[in-house]
Amino acid sequence: MKAQIIAIGDELLIGQTLNSNTTFLGKVLTELDVEVQKQVVIGDEEEIILSEFTAAWKSAQLVVVTGGLGPTHDDITCATVAKFFNSELEKNPDVLKDITERFARLNRTMAAINETQAMVPNIASVIRNYNGTAPGLWIEKENKIMVVMPGVPYEMKQMLTNYVVPKLLEKIPPSGLITKRLTLLTTGIAESTLFSKFGDIKEFLQGAKLAFLPNQFGVKLRLTVTEKDEESAFNKLNELEQKIRALAGRYIYGKDEDDLAEVVGNLLKERGLTISVAESCTGGNICSRLTNFNGSSKYFDRGVVVYSNASKVELLNVDEDSFTNFGSVSSEVARQMAEGIKSISGSDIGLSVTGILGPTGGSAEKPVGTVFIGICEQNGCIVQKFNFGDDRILNKQRGSQAALDIVRKNILGIPLDH
Amino acid sequence: MKAQIIAIGDELLIGQTLNSNTTFLGKVLTELDVEVQKQVVIGDEEEIILSEFTAAWKSAQLVVVTGGLGPTHDDITCATVAKFFNSELEKNPDVLKDITERFARLNRTMAAINETQAMVPNIASVIRNYNGTAPGLWIEKENKIMVVMPGVPYEMKQMLTNYVVPKLLEKIPPSGLITKRLTLLTTGIAESTLFSKFGDIKEFLQGAKLAFLPNQFGVKLRLTVTEKDEESAFNKLNELEQKIRALAGRYIYGKDEDDLAEVVGNLLKERGLTISVAESCTGGNICSRLTNFNGSSKYFDRGVVVYSNASKVELLNVDEDSFTNFGSVSSEVARQMAEGIKSISGSDIGLSVTGILGPTGGSAEKPVGTVFIGICEQNGCIVQKFNFGDDRILNKQRGSQAALDIVRKNILGIPLDH
Repeated sequence: MKAQIIAIGDELLIGQTLNSNTTFLGKVLTELDVEVQKQVVIGDEEEIILSEFTAAWKSAQLVVVTGGLGPTHDDITCATVAKFFNSELEKNPDVLKDITERFARLNRTMAAINETQAMVPNIASVIRNYNGTAPGLWIEKENKIMVVMPGVPYEMKQMLTNYVVPKLLEKIPPSGLITKRLTLLTTGIAESTLFSKFGDIKEFLQGAKLAFLPNQFGVKLRLTVTEKDEESAFNKLNELEQKIRALAGRYIYGKDEDDLAEVVGNLLKERGLTISVAESCTGGNICSRLTNFNGSSKYFDRGVVVYSNASKVELLNVDEDSFTNFGSVSSEVARQMAEGIKSISGSDIGLSVTGILGPTGGSAEKPVGTVFIGICEQNGCIVQKFNFGDDRILNKQRGSQAALDIVRKNILGIPLDH
Repeated sequence: MKAQIIAIGDELLIGQTLNSNTTFLGKVLTELDVEVQKQVVIGDEEEIILSEFTAAWKSAQLVVVTGGLGPTHDDITCATVAKFFNSELEKNPDVLKDITERFARLNRTMAAINETQAMVPNIASVIRNYNGTAPGLWIEKENKIMVVMPGVPYEMKQMLTNYVVPKLLEKIPPSGLITKRLTLLTTGIAESTLFSKFGDIKEFLQGAKLAFLPNQFGVKLRLTVTEKDEESAFNKLNELEQKIRALAGRYIYGKDEDDLAEVVGNLLKERGLTISVAESCTGGNICSRLTNFNGSSKYFDRGVVVYSNASKVELLNVDEDSFTNFGSVSSEVARQMAEGIKSISGSDIGLSVTGILGPTGGSAEKPVGTVFIGICEQNGCIVQKFNFGDDRILNKQRGSQAALDIVRKNILGIPLDH
């Protein structure tokens, strides 16, 4: 089954809103073995919407549309869908009931305008919205499917998961071939260095595909194999994974959608270890990442964001003379911060970061991007120095990622790079 | 000038990588008064790339392409551009020099494969890459322009800012009309409640456009006016802004790309105030947001992430009996946390958050989504209770946003909602 995704909304086109919906849809459809041919973003204009509907309906068996279903005057998707299918808009009593009950439950007064959201094209089956008021639409015609969902990400995701995916699974015809994908996530190694480890890439891959996807958190390696049956695909993928791990295993922290913070959290949980974090330049980002996961209180005890020198002294017992002798961004202060947070929390691991994120504050000796990361555990303390780039936010993300990777390597007994 | 954006990369199509580039490009082009008609995402396949190039080249005067310029085998954009324009690939000595020098500067060994990145279509002018190795391309033909840039966001942004925007400004013909946009950012009010304040929206707008854009941080109001000259556009926009502020001013925290954390930071700086933060459920997210901006050390002293009850007692002097008497998620504990952080830091403002983000940990009395936010300053302490939804990450973001908005309202003397 081939699919096209159409996201509607001036806010996407003019770059005001990050388009996370098409990313999510692409991922979910690919997992269902639906081939996403194209994603298109267009504005809230009837003529353009109709023209893209026509083009997509011609070349794909599945057209997924998001956006423009809200209650306000600039939302025209629902009426345009009706027009495209020559279908009448009718008030749907189930939708009206859902909307009315939602407002009652949230103890809010229902604006008259929300009632118009119950008007849906009579060709469509309604997809219920548990997180908002706009209903989704499921339309089947000429052996093709159009799915229309709101642009608000958590409303769309809920409809996709609970309604669209199960219905699509019934409709997708079995293909003769099996495609399997695996993405290995690396950090701490440059794309070209990683690539050079593979030698002759075609020989290495033996017909499989491998994509190198770099960003500030590391380089992702996406493997794709297509074989005649489940077993050969599984075996080939497995064999290639082992070969890649033999080349670059120490840099691989996870697979697919893994987040390094969750990987580290799981390692801590498995080993029954606790961690506490003292952050200067990363400003709480490491703590925030470690606590993004349910159950993080099992391994995360506390953190301190010690921006001022006074707070480093008062909360972590950093020796005041160190600031003048070594500077607050120094290996010595990073070590004392990690020791301090381990000692005051009684955690098994103390982690610390101090650095210069920029854009100002650099010097010849310690340019912007200089970051020291310290870790203390029962066997002692280690501090590693990094030289990142010029961008404040990228440096923050790189610093957090590098710090979490030091914890991973420490727990797994992988020595640090020099 | 009309433009289309083409992003190339299987990783975008299958939803593995969030497509932030087209968002950024849409925004920058719109600011230049270039009309973005469409954004398209396609995979790394020559035939499809050529077909989209042909379609876009036909209907737009500017085609902006990103992605597929890396050093590895799966990057085919550069060769496909050469094919599209019937142009030869030639080794460009300037590019080779840039790449060689970059590796030397970073003290890294240059992989042989990076040399192939110096091969560019001879029809193109080269756009230098200061953040990576892949050069960008600028091609003019038949009174049209194609710009090709890498998919790595910080490489693309640098090229866009330093090279593409200045060159485009020379090329854009003046139109007879002036379009001006303004987005007012609200938080703490539902989309339909906000909309109902406008009465008859057409009458209110008098020909201008207004879009309502909700997300977990609030509802954005995007105003667009198109007039015959600069002055009328400016006046109309200004008049509408004032009318909207009269209706909903207390909920408006900023404009356009403002981040509430930066707005709060600037307010603190202006008034010479300092803040310290005690976070439980938000896990460091508020501290991290407050420190995303250069110069944040002026107003941000320190933060503590007190996940365990022990850390709340030891770092903030929260009374241990309060956990049994009120629960660690309670108005009382939020107040003591805010008092504690204000007192130990000596900051002007102490801010605290404690709540149940989910998915587990809720009860009948305190369901998932219950969050208490406390603020203490010289006039005393206030705690506000919120009921957010079921999603852990959304709740974290909503909690951070609500906490920062309480600080904003406190500084500006805006009373809190009940």
